[in-house]
Amino acid sequence: MSDPVVRPKSAGKTSRRSTQSVTLAEVAELAGVSAQTVSRALRTPEQVSEQTLVTVQKAVQSTGYVPNMTARNLASNRSMTVGALVPNLVGTIFTDVLSGLDETLSPNGYHLFVGTTGYDPEPEEEMIRAFLGRRPDGMVLTGTSHTRLARQMLSKANIPIIETLTLSGKPIDSLVGFSNSQAIRVLTESRITKGFKHPTFAGWLRDVDERANERLRGFQEAVTTKLPGEPLRFVNTEDLGISIEAGRYLAREVLMRHPETDLLVCSSDVFAEGAILEFVSRGIDVPGRIGVTGLGDFDLAKHLSPSLTTVLTPNKDVGRAAAEILLKAMASRRKTPGRVVRDLGFDIISRESA
Amino acid sequence: MSDPVVRPKSAGKTSRRSTQSVTLAEVAELAGVSAQTVSRALRTPEQVSEQTLVTVQKAVQSTGYVPNMTARNLASNRSMTVGALVPNLVGTIFTDVLSGLDETLSPNGYHLFVGTTGYDPEPEEEMIRAFLGRRPDGMVLTGTSHTRLARQMLSKANIPIIETLTLSGKPIDSLVGFSNSQAIRVLTESRITKGFKHPTFAGWLRDVDERANERLRGFQEAVTTKLPGEPLRFVNTEDLGISIEAGRYLAREVLMRHPETDLLVCSSDVFAEGAILEFVSRGIDVPGRIGVTGLGDFDLAKHLSPSLTTVLTPNKDVGRAAAEILLKAMASRRKTPGRVVRDLGFDIISRESA
Repeated sequence: MSDPVVRPKSAGKTSRRSTQSVTLAEVAELAGVSAQTVSRALRTPEQVSEQTLVTVQKAVQSTGYVPNMTARNLASNRSMTVGALVPNLVGTIFTDVLSGLDETLSPNGYHLFVGTTGYDPEPEEEMIRAFLGRRPDGMVLTGTSHTRLARQMLSKANIPIIETLTLSGKPIDSLVGFSNSQAIRVLTESRITKGFKHPTFAGWLRDVDERANERLRGFQEAVTTKLPGEPLRFVNTEDLGISIEAGRYLAREVLMRHPETDLLVCSSDVFAEGAILEFVSRGIDVPGRIGVTGLGDFDLAKHLSPSLTTVLTPNKDVGRAAAEILLKAMASRRKTPGRVVRDLGFDIISRESA
Repeated sequence: MSDPVVRPKSAGKTSRRSTQSVTLAEVAELAGVSAQTVSRALRTPEQVSEQTLVTVQKAVQSTGYVPNMTARNLASNRSMTVGALVPNLVGTIFTDVLSGLDETLSPNGYHLFVGTTGYDPEPEEEMIRAFLGRRPDGMVLTGTSHTRLARQMLSKANIPIIETLTLSGKPIDSLVGFSNSQAIRVLTESRITKGFKHPTFAGWLRDVDERANERLRGFQEAVTTKLPGEPLRFVNTEDLGISIEAGRYLAREVLMRHPETDLLVCSSDVFAEGAILEFVSRGIDVPGRIGVTGLGDFDLAKHLSPSLTTVLTPNKDVGRAAAEILLKAMASRRKTPGRVVRDLGFDIISRESA
């Protein structure tokens, strides 16, 4: 990519329009050196004398000059940015992934562009187009379910693409996550082994949320395998979103629609928290009358009474691992070598609730 | 869903240097028009015929070409980005602010650069330098406490700067938030009016966290005004961070160090949640023996037993309002006119816990 607009000379003149008021020329004037020397001191400090470096640094500090990395990055064909798309910024899972990405990328000079997509591939496609248009050096996505056009744009962008938080689907490039279906399958099977006989799945079930559907599939596999003949039951929050309130609703729903249920397998800790609070407030014995499980092991899980049996998912590690794969690939300016698929696993956390 | 393994022939050739494999020339070739015509169709569609537009659009879609906005934005002297710095991505308060920013900026074509600073002005200064170097069209910061050099860089960058989530301190440009000291003052005074006589403040108190210190000041003002002669008491989580566990620790601390306390005024809902869970698990009557208040009105507050008396803070509205001020200023390419200071207020939510 060539440098389409070289600015330095005109910068002083255009300062009324420019987004940056202090120019290289002003720094040079204050330091009593040429603009070229300032530029050299900032880009290749090893090429100027110690004394010049100190003089320039003082002038930079006292003027508050900030070197324009955009022009520099455009010239070097790197933006030093990574684009990350998550469904929302509310769920601990996604903000944990971003946190892991940020803490690994930032010390390496890369910064995060963050966008939210809802759980919907259509707005995601729009965001992908806008993000790729900013020429990031890498991109991180949630899940492997995208529109056909989004997949096409991503495969043709010659940058590493990391999809996260799932192991299912066909990855575009690299994939880092854990198996949502295995997590719920193993959890449900282990509770069936403990004696629960009539489990019901609870979640927010929609076509567009692939990870929720993977969890439902894991539940179905456990029931089919371990409890042949047992009907597959689920309760759906419909439009209540992911909230404790929605969990309370799910608890009431299961009592009304499937009173034979002795175990409520929730697709998220948030629902499980609400369900436990609802059952307890109604004087229903958890896990005596009905057990409850979650997924996420959020902050509240161990403090609930009864404490919550759940799955600890490696969210922050997913962010860190994605960042590490990206850093390696971006250093060599290539797609990730050999399409890394990294399974970070999960842990079943057995507590009082089931 | 397309097969990700099949790559266009040209991808191999250019992949070593370019971050984008599909070029304008390839789109032009497929469309059977000149590169200039493609460029015109993408930038000023009103200047080409309907038929040409359709042909070009088809070629863009089938090649997966993504126009380079970086070059375009550099030419127009706009990056169409906003930089946002928050202490972390864990607290609901900050992710709510980012959520409000994102949902307002994104439909207007602006994208968010997100960075985390801890609560520390030193790493924040580094981040501000790096962010300004990317020439954002605006910046959003948390609080008004920054290093001298950070303030200087921000004041000299000719872009709108919005500081958020406080009303205290000297704003660099515009300020959107609520008064943390007023929030805790009004809450504490109203509980004293209800009959509580020996309040103690609980939080994570450090020099660098200006907002936590404002809350402590609000508490001190309430006690000094309404309970003359009453000693000023507080308990500090030290290094336990902001977690339910830390709240449980604060509850144990207050029982041990200040057993005369009849009201625990927590600087965050998270601490209050932990304190209630700790008191209840010890069979201590809340609010009979000791009342508890929070700040934030997070999801759990109304579902706790006893439900939590707290302050509803307008986090998402802070993000939305900051974005609106930015959009207006960025449209005119100026600093925000007249240094807007917007107080979005707060609501006291009275529930069972105090």
